[in-house]
Amino acid sequence: MKANLVLLPGDGIGPEIVESAKSVLEVVAKRFGHEFQYTSCLIGGIAIDETGDPLPQDTVDACRQSDAILLGAVGGPKWDDPNAKTRPEAGLLRIRKELGLFANLRPIKMFDQLADASPLRPDIIKGTDILFFRELTGGIYFGQSGSGEVDGHESAYQSMVYSVPEVERIVRLAAKAAQGRDNRLTSVDKANVLEPSRLWRRTAARVMADEFPDVQYDVVLVDAMAMHLINRPADFDVVVTGNMFGDILTDEASMLPGSLGMLPSASLGDGGPGLYEPIHGSAPDIAGKGIANPLATILASAMLLRHSLDLNEEAAAVESAVQEVLADGLRTADIARGGDSVSTEVMGQAVTAKLA
Amino acid sequence: MKANLVLLPGDGIGPEIVESAKSVLEVVAKRFGHEFQYTSCLIGGIAIDETGDPLPQDTVDACRQSDAILLGAVGGPKWDDPNAKTRPEAGLLRIRKELGLFANLRPIKMFDQLADASPLRPDIIKGTDILFFRELTGGIYFGQSGSGEVDGHESAYQSMVYSVPEVERIVRLAAKAAQGRDNRLTSVDKANVLEPSRLWRRTAARVMADEFPDVQYDVVLVDAMAMHLINRPADFDVVVTGNMFGDILTDEASMLPGSLGMLPSASLGDGGPGLYEPIHGSAPDIAGKGIANPLATILASAMLLRHSLDLNEEAAAVESAVQEVLADGLRTADIARGGDSVSTEVMGQAVTAKLA
Ligand SMILES: [Mg+2]
Ligand SMILES: [Mg+2]
Repeated sequence: MKANLVLLPGDGIGPEIVESAKSVLEVVAKRFGHEFQYTSCLIGGIAIDETGDPLPQDTVDACRQSDAILLGAVGGPKWDDPNAKTRPEAGLLRIRKELGLFANLRPIKMFDQLADASPLRPDIIKGTDILFFRELTGGIYFGQSGSGEVDGHESAYQSMVYSVPEVERIVRLAAKAAQGRDNRLTSVDKANVLEPSRLWRRTAARVMADEFPDVQYDVVLVDAMAMHLINRPADFDVVVTGNMFGDILTDEASMLPGSLGMLPSASLGDGGPGLYEPIHGSAPDIAGKGIANPLATILASAMLLRHSLDLNEEAAAVESAVQEVLADGLRTADIARGGDSVSTEVMGQAVTAKLA
Repeated sequence: MKANLVLLPGDGIGPEIVESAKSVLEVVAKRFGHEFQYTSCLIGGIAIDETGDPLPQDTVDACRQSDAILLGAVGGPKWDDPNAKTRPEAGLLRIRKELGLFANLRPIKMFDQLADASPLRPDIIKGTDILFFRELTGGIYFGQSGSGEVDGHESAYQSMVYSVPEVERIVRLAAKAAQGRDNRLTSVDKANVLEPSRLWRRTAARVMADEFPDVQYDVVLVDAMAMHLINRPADFDVVVTGNMFGDILTDEASMLPGSLGMLPSASLGDGGPGLYEPIHGSAPDIAGKGIANPLATILASAMLLRHSLDLNEEAAAVESAVQEVLADGLRTADIARGGDSVSTEVMGQAVTAKLA
C-alpha cells in the first residue's frame, strides 16, 4: 500500500527517537512491499523558535493530508518561561483538536524480559497486556466551570458532561480493537453515583449489544478498577473509560511495567489521520547524547501500522522484533538497571535487523 | 478518663470482631486506669429485622450522646432483595450524615511481617505508612446532576463543587493528624484543570501557611498520586483530598498491604463522636464460624483511642500489640497464605495478652 506519513520530531530527544522509528518503518515498507512517503514538520519549541508558533499552519495542513502522524516529544526548559506568549505543549493540544482526536489509546504491556523492572511482584504482573481507550475531548476537564458565593461561602464548580454520541464513538473504537485482540472489553465508570456515568453505562451497553454481541463485555467501577490494576492486571484486555477516569487509571497503569521508556500511545478520531507518540517526554537532560530509548516510539509506529494503516501483520512483526532484541539482552540506559547499555542507534538498528 | 462508647456490631462477622475489639479496649482501660462504658445498639440488617429500620432512633440518640462509636459491618444476602423498602447500608450512610462526619480517615500501613502478602515488591512497599483524609460529604458525588438534550443529543451532567469552609475543616483535621505523626501533609487535587481543585489548592495553602507553618506541606496532582502509590508509597505521611479522588486513591492504596482484613478506618466530624470500623465487609460466608480476622477492628479501636479520646500512648500500645502477635507468627485464615491459622478468639486473646 501507499501511505503519507507526517513526522513531528519536536524537541529534546524527539528527533533521535523519531529517526529510529522511521528506520523501522522503512524496513517494514521494504519487507512487506509498501510505499511510505515521509514529510517532516515543525511542532513544539523548535516551531516556536523558527516561526513563533508551536503549531505552524504548514504542519496542520500536512497532518490533515496525511494518513498518520508520528510525534517525538515537545517541550524543554528553554521554553518554560511562565511569561512566554505560548508554550510547546500548546502545539500538541491544538493538533489533537484540529484533527478531532477524541480517543487516546494507551497499551500497557509487560515484556517478560523486563519483569524485574515492575514495582509489582512478577507473579502478579506476568502476562499483563491491556489496551486503554480514554475519551479525550469531553467529561469534566472540558465541562462548564465557575465560582461564586453559595450560602455566603466562596465556592467553585466544574461539570462532568457526557452525551450519547460521545460515548458511542469511543465505545465503537474500543470494541473494534477488542475484536483484533482477545475480544474482551471492560467499560469503567462510576454509575452508582454519577449521572453522566449512568448515561455512559446505558449507551455502552446498547452499542455492545446491538453492534458487538460477539465481544465479551463487562463493567467495573473506577475505584474498583484502581484496585484491580494492582492485584490482577493480567485479567484485562481492552478497557474503555471517560477522560478523567482514563487520566488517573492510565497513569496508574503506566507504572506497572516499570519502564516509561517502553510505552507508546495513540490518539484517534473518526476516520482521519491518527497521532502516534511515546508517553514519555522530551527528556532534555539526555537530548543529543544518543542514549534515549527509542522503543516506545518504535512501538508507537507499530500502533500506527495497526490502527491507521490496518497493517496488522506488519505491526505484530515490529512488536516481535522489539521482544527479540530484549530477549537478546539489549538495553538502553533507562532500562539497564545498572547493567550494560547500548545507544539509541544500536537499539534501533537491532530492531531493524530483526525485521529485514 | 471516663468515656461512653457505643458498639454497633451489625451483621455477618460484625458481632465477632467487635467483641474481640471490645476485649482489647477493656484491657487498655484496666492497664491505663480508664473507665469505658459500653452501649450496644442495632444497625444494618439486624436492625431491619428487629425494628424495620436500619438505623433506629435509639441508635442515633445513643451515638449522639457517646464519645465514640465502634462499628463492625452491615449487610448480607438476607437483605439484598432489590425490592426491599430499605437496605442495611442505608443505616451506615444515615449515621454518618446524622453525626456530620465529613472526614474519612484511611491508614495504609504495611506490617513488615506481612510484606509477602503485598502485590508490590518488598523493597517498594517497605515502610509504607500513609494516613489518608478523604472529604466525605461534598464534591461531585453530592453535586447537582441532571440530563437533557444538548445540541440535539441526549446528555447528562453532574457538578463537582467545593466551598472554602469544606476545604478548611478537613485540611485542619489532616494537618493536626500530621503533627502527631511525621509532620508532613500532601494535598491531592487536579488544579491544573478543575476550578474546584483550584479553590481547594488555594484554600489548603492558606490554612497551612497561617495555621500550620511547622508542617511540611506539598501538593500532588491526582493522576501523579495514582502513580506514586505504586512506585514510591513509602514517601508519604498524611494525604488529604476530595471525595472522588479520595475514593479512587484509598481503594487503590488498600491493595498495597495485600490484606484487607488488616485495614481500619474512621469517620470524623467537628468535635462530636467519631465512627470507627474495619474497611472490610460483613463476610456473611464465614459469619459465626469464629475464623474472621479481628485485627482491622482492633486497629480501628486504636484509632478511636487516638482520634476521639486523645489517648495516644494507649493507641500506640494496641498497635504494637498487633505487631507483636504478627511477629509471633499468629495468622487468621485470611492472612495465613495457606499456612497454619488461628481463630478470631485466639487472635483477640493474643493481642489482649500483650497488653495486659
Ligand atoms: Mg495524566
Ligand atoms: Mg470506593
